Amino acid sequence: MNKTILLTDIIDFLGNEILAVHGNPEGIEIRHLSDPHNVDEFTLDWINPLRPDKQNIAKKSKARAIIADPETSYDENLSAQNKVLIIVDKPKLAIAKIGNAFFVKKPKPGIHTTAVIHPEAIIGKDAYIGPNVTIGKCKIGDCAIIHNGVTIADGVETGNQVVIKPGAVLGHEGFGFGRLEDGSLIKFPQLGKLIIYDKVEIGSNTCIDKGSLSDTIIGKGTKINNLCHIAHNVVVGKNVIITAQVNVSGSTIIEDNVWIAPNASLRGHQKIGKGATIGTGAVVTKNVPAGETWVGNPAKKLEK
Amino acid sequence: MNKTILLTDIIDFLGNEILAVHGNPEGIEIRHLSDPHNVDEFTLDWINPLRPDKQNIAKKSKARAIIADPETSYDENLSAQNKVLIIVDKPKLAIAKIGNAFFVKKPKPGIHTTAVIHPEAIIGKDAYIGPNVTIGKCKIGDCAIIHNGVTIADGVETGNQVVIKPGAVLGHEGFGFGRLEDGSLIKFPQLGKLIIYDKVEIGSNTCIDKGSLSDTIIGKGTKINNLCHIAHNVVVGKNVIITAQVNVSGSTIIEDNVWIAPNASLRGHQKIGKGATIGTGAVVTKNVPAGETWVGNPAKKLEK
Amino acid sequence: MNKTILLTDIIDFLGNEILAVHGNPEGIEIRHLSDPHNVDEFTLDWINPLRPDKQNIAKKSKARAIIADPETSYDENLSAQNKVLIIVDKPKLAIAKIGNAFFVKKPKPGIHTTAVIHPEAIIGKDAYIGPNVTIGKCKIGDCAIIHNGVTIADGVETGNQVVIKPGAVLGHEGFGFGRLEDGSLIKFPQLGKLIIYDKVEIGSNTCIDKGSLSDTIIGKGTKINNLCHIAHNVVVGKNVIITAQVNVSGSTIIEDNVWIAPNASLRGHQKIGKGATIGTGAVVTKNVPAGETWVGNPAKKLEK
Repeated sequence: MNKTILLTDIIDFLGNEILAVHGNPEGIEIRHLSDPHNVDEFTLDWINPLRPDKQNIAKKSKARAIIADPETSYDENLSAQNKVLIIVDKPKLAIAKIGNAFFVKKPKPGIHTTAVIHPEAIIGKDAYIGPNVTIGKCKIGDCAIIHNGVTIADGVETGNQVVIKPGAVLGHEGFGFGRLEDGSLIKFPQLGKLIIYDKVEIGSNTCIDKGSLSDTIIGKGTKINNLCHIAHNVVVGKNVIITAQVNVSGSTIIEDNVWIAPNASLRGHQKIGKGATIGTGAVVTKNVPAGETWVGNPAKKLEK
Repeated sequence: MNKTILLTDIIDFLGNEILAVHGNPEGIEIRHLSDPHNVDEFTLDWINPLRPDKQNIAKKSKARAIIADPETSYDENLSAQNKVLIIVDKPKLAIAKIGNAFFVKKPKPGIHTTAVIHPEAIIGKDAYIGPNVTIGKCKIGDCAIIHNGVTIADGVETGNQVVIKPGAVLGHEGFGFGRLEDGSLIKFPQLGKLIIYDKVEIGSNTCIDKGSLSDTIIGKGTKINNLCHIAHNVVVGKNVIITAQVNVSGSTIIEDNVWIAPNASLRGHQKIGKGATIGTGAVVTKNVPAGETWVGNPAKKLEK
Repeated sequence: MNKTILLTDIIDFLGNEILAVHGNPEGIEIRHLSDPHNVDEFTLDWINPLRPDKQNIAKKSKARAIIADPETSYDENLSAQNKVLIIVDKPKLAIAKIGNAFFVKKPKPGIHTTAVIHPEAIIGKDAYIGPNVTIGKCKIGDCAIIHNGVTIADGVETGNQVVIKPGAVLGHEGFGFGRLEDGSLIKFPQLGKLIIYDKVEIGSNTCIDKGSLSDTIIGKGTKINNLCHIAHNVVVGKNVIITAQVNVSGSTIIEDNVWIAPNASLRGHQKIGKGATIGTGAVVTKNVPAGETWVGNPAKKLEK
């Protein structure tokens, strides 16, 4: 974060999202986004619309440039301090966009020499494939970012703009065994695929198994955090958030926009309805209707 | 799954397990096993004996060849469709065997050039060792399949036909500390071994620590899924199923044929009796008698 | 553990910690520390001060040398057996020190040829960096032990004598998303650092994210076991014990000397007070006052 950005460039970038700019942005340099513990004259600060004391925060901020919602006004005090106040409807969203555009570093496209890639794998254009990645006979979409140490087994297909973080293991055999009469275990063949749609992000050391006879599917825009386990034949919808250490057992269906808190476990063959919320450490043993929040072990509907 | 297998070869393979073959199998080609969403003329379909409508499933299947139990009969409709009905006692088991024999791809024996192996390690015959594997001074049995990115530390001994999936870490130091008077922590030496018997399978990114002064042991035929943690001195019996994200703390004993559901946690120094079942997310803080099912946090016996 | 150590060298090493040595240690060879299942004439045995039958344990041990506390006396029986009894205040601690000094193997400093290290990374002196490690633009302290397959992303700073076990992923982007009106998710920029102080140990396949706008911090002497997830902006104090599979969500503060049992989950933005204990599988949704023990889902104070 040692880059210096001109505030005027940030204002140009936000464009129509800006409702008003108060004060003179010319010549102001921005080196970092607001960190509440570390605001200085090079910070682009922002004010959470939920705070009751917004005017006071703007007054006391050490930053020269502040993004706030329309309830904050450019009063004499801000003017006397030569501050710049940028008014937008959603300050946090504006900060996110600015951060992603100006401060986040993305790896440059290219395949690291240590990656081990199946000769028949199809890799889309502008993909980054990091050190020690292992890719089987599979299809990777355009603009993929596949960080170091990721495993992508045979039969995985990804859309475009997927991000896979270090150590994730995608498309390996699922865990299905039958017990024979002598107690020993026979493996059920795991022959399906793992299909990952566009803009999915998968966290570090997360494991997603391929399907057994049908496929495992991760829908468009879904984000999965670190150390999750998604079993065979699971079908995850669009824009689902699966936070860290979540377990989803086989053949469970998770519909669009569901939010699953850390360390929750979903039993197999259940259905989590659209927009449902699952609490931290919840053990879900039943179908969860759309829009409901379930918590506890075993999980029950949270009455609000 | 683009291979084509002759149905007659499958019938030969099943041999004595077949009670009857109805219809003419000559010339029928099989390209995939039953996936309920995707059955076509090249599918080998099967019918779950628990289904009440078996005859109707056989009638409506788009497959030309179906495996079913003796309650399904080769009626006029099946005959008119020129279907082949193969009768066995356990259709699912037959499908598993066929899948493993004809469709599952196993890696060919050999050691990838990027594997880093201790010069005094002993590797059994016909082992597959994938890319970026790290193997210390240890003994690996015959026909091992050790996938990419696995770590096997000094002092691990495995039997034959073990399967270790990507990113698993086997035989590293366990986690044992004592607190000194100034609050700082001193490590207890971790000097034991990790001993893994024949036909054990260990999931992706699972960690199994070596013993502290005695050994950690994983019994013959036991299967462990992804992202599990098995601590020092744990002793696991034969044919145990440990599903994803299970935690087994130090010195706990798990007897033969136990089944542990995902995300369960077993406190250290407990004993899980033969054939017991532990529920999803259960937090087991006591000994569990043989054959019982325990669920909840803290886990209690499930009365049926 | 095939090394042979002279008991007299061990006695020299313990020095002032020894209250008394009974019997003649000359010529006694030690090859291993006490493993209750496997004591022989080359074992250095020890007796837990909590055991009621200490004198009898000393009598029956097959070892020639035994470490015990002052309640054990060198009676005629021990003398007749020519045993050596070494008296210290804390036998377990003495065994730990002996094991660490004489039996634990540490990797030799050096950087494995397969490690991929950013050209501007600063690596302290006497560091060991194992096979297939990936290190970004960051600062690693002196005497670090970084095992194979570890990922250390840009912006991580570590103190001295840190130990990072295989497959850990340190300093990658945290998991923060906002939902837009069309349901899609936008990432909040993750621009902070991960700062790790001296003598921290981090377990295999554990993931610790860097801060979003402020930093993630792991305090001096803290030990973290395998498969844990520590989210962005978490601040962990000194000498904390975080056992396996623990989840700590974003911005939570864990004060000094806290002990967190396996598979516990801490919600974000909470504070765990100094010296608190969190039980196995506990789901902590509130602040925990200093010194208290909380268990269950949701976690509540355990009244003793």
